[in-house]
Amino acid sequence: MAHIFSVIMAGGVGSRFWPRSRERSPKQLLELTGSGTMVQNTIARIEPLVPSVNTLVVTNALQSDEIVKQLPFIPKENILVEPVGRNTAPCVGLAASWVSRMDPQGVMIVLPADHVIQNVPEFLRVLTVAISIAEETGGLVTIGIKPSHPETGYGYIQFSDDEGSNRYRAKEAYRVKTFAEKPNLETAERFLKSGDFLWNSGMFVWKAESILAEIGTHLPELSEQLKALAPSMGTAGYGAALEQAYGLIRGISIDYGVMEKAGNVYVVKGDFGWSDVGSWDEAVRLSKPDEDGNVKKGSVISRNSRNNFIQANSKIVATIGVEDLIIVSTEDAVLVCKKGQSQDVKEIVDYIRRKQMNEYL
Amino acid sequence: MAHIFSVIMAGGVGSRFWPRSRERSPKQLLELTGSGTMVQNTIARIEPLVPSVNTLVVTNALQSDEIVKQLPFIPKENILVEPVGRNTAPCVGLAASWVSRMDPQGVMIVLPADHVIQNVPEFLRVLTVAISIAEETGGLVTIGIKPSHPETGYGYIQFSDDEGSNRYRAKEAYRVKTFAEKPNLETAERFLKSGDFLWNSGMFVWKAESILAEIGTHLPELSEQLKALAPSMGTAGYGAALEQAYGLIRGISIDYGVMEKAGNVYVVKGDFGWSDVGSWDEAVRLSKPDEDGNVKKGSVISRNSRNNFIQANSKIVATIGVEDLIIVSTEDAVLVCKKGQSQDVKEIVDYIRRKQMNEYL
Repeated sequence: MAHIFSVIMAGGVGSRFWPRSRERSPKQLLELTGSGTMVQNTIARIEPLVPSVNTLVVTNALQSDEIVKQLPFIPKENILVEPVGRNTAPCVGLAASWVSRMDPQGVMIVLPADHVIQNVPEFLRVLTVAISIAEETGGLVTIGIKPSHPETGYGYIQFSDDEGSNRYRAKEAYRVKTFAEKPNLETAERFLKSGDFLWNSGMFVWKAESILAEIGTHLPELSEQLKALAPSMGTAGYGAALEQAYGLIRGISIDYGVMEKAGNVYVVKGDFGWSDVGSWDEAVRLSKPDEDGNVKKGSVISRNSRNNFIQANSKIVATIGVEDLIIVSTEDAVLVCKKGQSQDVKEIVDYIRRKQMNEYL
Repeated sequence: MAHIFSVIMAGGVGSRFWPRSRERSPKQLLELTGSGTMVQNTIARIEPLVPSVNTLVVTNALQSDEIVKQLPFIPKENILVEPVGRNTAPCVGLAASWVSRMDPQGVMIVLPADHVIQNVPEFLRVLTVAISIAEETGGLVTIGIKPSHPETGYGYIQFSDDEGSNRYRAKEAYRVKTFAEKPNLETAERFLKSGDFLWNSGMFVWKAESILAEIGTHLPELSEQLKALAPSMGTAGYGAALEQAYGLIRGISIDYGVMEKAGNVYVVKGDFGWSDVGSWDEAVRLSKPDEDGNVKKGSVISRNSRNNFIQANSKIVATIGVEDLIIVSTEDAVLVCKKGQSQDVKEIVDYIRRKQMNEYL
């Protein structure tokens, strides 16, 4: 049996968790809900399937020091540092090249570093199904989340469930019919009603050689750069070669660049308490409140205050008579946001960027 | 004509403006409303009556560096540093001894350093009346504020307005009948209705020799210590002598220790937009809001936020969708308080003290 690898995509630059998420400390490096940072929890979750020597983490130069610090149990050579972010296709391609070098038959589980999963045993069961399909078919397998509401913030995957073509329906795995972009509410409601649409979680399972072959077909330029890079891997010339390759590679997502065009694509239905924790409000929903409905972290003194989410981090926060607030305080910034309005954090960050107040980015 | 001196009592340790007011930076050293710190504004206000060489500032060791920094135009020898706070009677007595040394006939205007006065010309007119009465009668003159509502947070002064005994009624100045402690609401309403009660502002005018004589009568121990201290004033032995005197002096207020017991006491009625700015809510009332009803200071980014009072001080504060909040952020602490509840700030400070989190005091 081939080795199982995990590829943790940890290069994201989130602005939705400002003031905690910054260019140097994006969401995946933060402890947003419960204990452990998101990237630590992501890796801990799949430990039963993947030993740390087979865990690759793809990140960037700004974040790699912190990644190394947070993941001391991952061999340093397994931390792949992209010279510049080029979206997910190059990230996946680079990781696949490394996996292929370590085991030409290797199967890789590709996971974003910043998701929360509540039912881990069920998650592992779904991954096991995905691994077996990836090995049996040589196809590309995605994890689709059973939708709970007509969410407009996610892409959707439509699957095909006719008995003739689908030999995996007993395992709730299907051939993919189409990928759909983030819908408007009306469309999302239609998707939900139809019963054959799942949320696109951005988690994938495939053999390294399968994805490299598909990249060869659908993204020939990327494929060429990866092939040119291969001989330098593990040598002193790797850094320069990587720099050169990334200078020539264009940014494109693996969904748009490969998944939507490939033929042999499967989806395994997952229902394991998944969240991409896309906002402070979502972090609030995933946290356990105290008897006053407050979620507190750090030095917080509250009087007559209910249903607040308060992160004091490095300094003390005192509240008097407030309700339904998200309060996040860091070394140099404070956010006070009414619950339900945290999507506007992005606009605060945009404003800071426009005003070139770069120290707060 | 005798020289006019001012004595600015700037040794208070306010906790009601936490997290801005701290042991080292109490209210009088802060810029709470508009521009300039409260002690700077207090001195600027009476400049037309008192030159800076005749201005004495009484403070304590913790605050004296900051006082010197904020008041570069006051001669250093005019800044009187109490070794330890002993309430207002010793503070007034010490200042009176210095005034008396500079001019035995000197008249002193005693002012707390942390009040706001909106109509300065009217304030100066009232002081001028008080000065003339102090000089003519040798009595103790207080400034009483015409009450606008049945405030329970102030002491009251009842005056006597029978034509026979009161030769100053044309100037709205009267003999004092009694001093009343902070009343309950019912009593305050009665006071307001009666028409012969004024708020006790804690501002006084008298000849140095008058108050020293009254201290001699009513606080003989304090008087003795002040007399013992006198020969050392202006000599190298002053510091040690002061330390010794303050070690023996008991803490007592000038109201309780002298004013309530003295016979020759006058009050001048003042109506000049006075406030002792006793809470963040009061600071809010004294500030001018922008078109959204917000009062902002420092780096503040607000979206969909109305009627808030936001002091960012050293760091950035972002608000989204919030209303009627008082938000005060400092280097190491953040307060988020519903408007109307800032009296509870004191309880936050009490909690911090009980928990011995002294770095936040």
